[in-house]
Amino acid sequence: MSAPVRIAIDAMGGDHGPETILAGVEIARVRHPDAQFVLFGDEPRIKTILARYPALAAASRIVHTDIVVGMDDKPSQALRRGRYRSSMWRSIDAVKQHEADAAVSAGNTGALMAMAKVNLRTMPGIDRPAIAGIWPTLRGESIVLDIGASIGATARSLIEMSIMGSAMARSIFDIESPTVGLLNVGTEEIKGAEEVKEAGRILREEGVADVNYHGFVEGNDIGAGTVDVVVTEGFTGNIALKTAEGTAKQLASYLRAAMGRSLRARIGYLFARDAFNVLREKMDPRRSNGGVFLGLNGIVIKSHGGTDAEGFAYAVDLAYDMVRHHLLQRIEKSIVSRLPATASRGVESAEAEGQS
Amino acid sequence: MSAPVRIAIDAMGGDHGPETILAGVEIARVRHPDAQFVLFGDEPRIKTILARYPALAAASRIVHTDIVVGMDDKPSQALRRGRYRSSMWRSIDAVKQHEADAAVSAGNTGALMAMAKVNLRTMPGIDRPAIAGIWPTLRGESIVLDIGASIGATARSLIEMSIMGSAMARSIFDIESPTVGLLNVGTEEIKGAEEVKEAGRILREEGVADVNYHGFVEGNDIGAGTVDVVVTEGFTGNIALKTAEGTAKQLASYLRAAMGRSLRARIGYLFARDAFNVLREKMDPRRSNGGVFLGLNGIVIKSHGGTDAEGFAYAVDLAYDMVRHHLLQRIEKSIVSRLPATASRGVESAEAEGQS
Repeated sequence: MSAPVRIAIDAMGGDHGPETILAGVEIARVRHPDAQFVLFGDEPRIKTILARYPALAAASRIVHTDIVVGMDDKPSQALRRGRYRSSMWRSIDAVKQHEADAAVSAGNTGALMAMAKVNLRTMPGIDRPAIAGIWPTLRGESIVLDIGASIGATARSLIEMSIMGSAMARSIFDIESPTVGLLNVGTEEIKGAEEVKEAGRILREEGVADVNYHGFVEGNDIGAGTVDVVVTEGFTGNIALKTAEGTAKQLASYLRAAMGRSLRARIGYLFARDAFNVLREKMDPRRSNGGVFLGLNGIVIKSHGGTDAEGFAYAVDLAYDMVRHHLLQRIEKSIVSRLPATASRGVESAEAEGQS
Repeated sequence: MSAPVRIAIDAMGGDHGPETILAGVEIARVRHPDAQFVLFGDEPRIKTILARYPALAAASRIVHTDIVVGMDDKPSQALRRGRYRSSMWRSIDAVKQHEADAAVSAGNTGALMAMAKVNLRTMPGIDRPAIAGIWPTLRGESIVLDIGASIGATARSLIEMSIMGSAMARSIFDIESPTVGLLNVGTEEIKGAEEVKEAGRILREEGVADVNYHGFVEGNDIGAGTVDVVVTEGFTGNIALKTAEGTAKQLASYLRAAMGRSLRARIGYLFARDAFNVLREKMDPRRSNGGVFLGLNGIVIKSHGGTDAEGFAYAVDLAYDMVRHHLLQRIEKSIVSRLPATASRGVESAEAEGQS
């Protein structure tokens, strides 16, 4: 038997408070009987909620914190007020202190990334952390990164992301040699940003260990599942993700309207209800909840702030999987002395950013 | 009665040849009895096809050209081989010579933009042309630009796009004061690219005539129809567009699979068939076919290369509407001496790009 997986939970993060967070942890606990939890937040409130979940209470330890990072706090503000003392900081710090193997928070992304960078620091050989998301596709699931850690990318950071994304794909999809695509535009006129072309050249011509480079992919290739790992800088990645979410919502709304527009359609809906349920499950955004912070000395998972208990449970599942499948060790193994010197132009220090 | 709308057609552009293009022009002609066409391409071939469409033949003039720009030709290559002589160049040139009011081509985007820039040149006061697309939303339709003319944007070019997009929205949506949003990311950490923030500051604080600025919008706001005009640089815009297309395809495929998975579901489908047809029509990508080149001294519409006759007809409709609603005059009117001096930092010459 392997050691239990210990997960630190920021019980105060998110739009709906600790009730939702702990209900989510309970759902995940049932799926992972060997998981243990450290719950950071308002102790009396957490205790009251845990009274409803005796099995979770038995698998958990509570650490009281007074400060809650607000959902709209700026990263600098959050660091000033919440450093050392907030439920968010302490969850991350539990990972640093080896009291937990991963931290999960539904708190605000900027504050969480800033605290994670300041406290855990970037891994040796990595200049910038990235946030990776899991994207449902026609062929299963793919990993897309960066979906919001930083704006802009150098050729080097795109290559780092290719390495980290590949390690993550090996961790959770159980495939030996996941394919990697660089997100680019197809029109001849613009032909791609310089750093994307340069990263593509290095991956194609020089090759990078542990990266199975497919080539450029376009926006429509993400949903098609053309590659296992899609790499792009954070501005574009974030917009692509939210655009896809918006499109899915839009089509679900069209579908609902169409199914309600006539008696025949409503009868049809009743007959096909099971099929619609399968469809709803496939389109359920909660199932792809959880952004994985990559490139730090520790595993931190960001849950959507507005998610419900079911959604938060998926983020906890993700943390569990990352620990069980040795994400950090896989990235470390891939990183060691592997970046070609030609890729290191124009690199900025991610650490400096973290301090700002 | 106003003068007829004269549209130049690149009959040789696109993946499916002049049969598809001319079938599309015929569909559009029925909708616009006052349109006249100048058809550029292989005369014998065009004549054979026109024999099937006597009414179109009566509304058209054929100009023979020998050279066809290939779908994979680089812009420089297309200019070398096709300048002055190709069906694509001649279609654009008809606009320049005032023999047509707009040109429509399903040929390759890069070549078309390069030829349009070299031949028509950018309007006074505009530094860079952009490509605008029409995006179906939950509230109707919005305009999104730039979807692929150039990579990167300055604050100034984002403001120019806000002006041009507003003029286009007034032309086709018939609203007096369309709302404009700058596409940005929502996470606190990254808070948006500098040029987007600067453009937002100018639009908000200084104000720009004829631009009703709403604020920043995120990827999911596009499909929600939060604003009438969404402004972003071409790399992100192109990826957002293709990601949405990919998501729509993916969900249509899920829906097909769900409706075929059991006898009950298939019976339900039969009952709700009319509803599904309405849905299919709403999701039909052909209905939003047509990228409008903005910022040039003439109207050029790019149709998807792979579209069918119905899709090409929508691109012709768009050209017709742009002429009828005086797109160019509206842009000119808005542009005149209106750019604040603070917005002109770091501007590159779009003309120089066009020559390369």
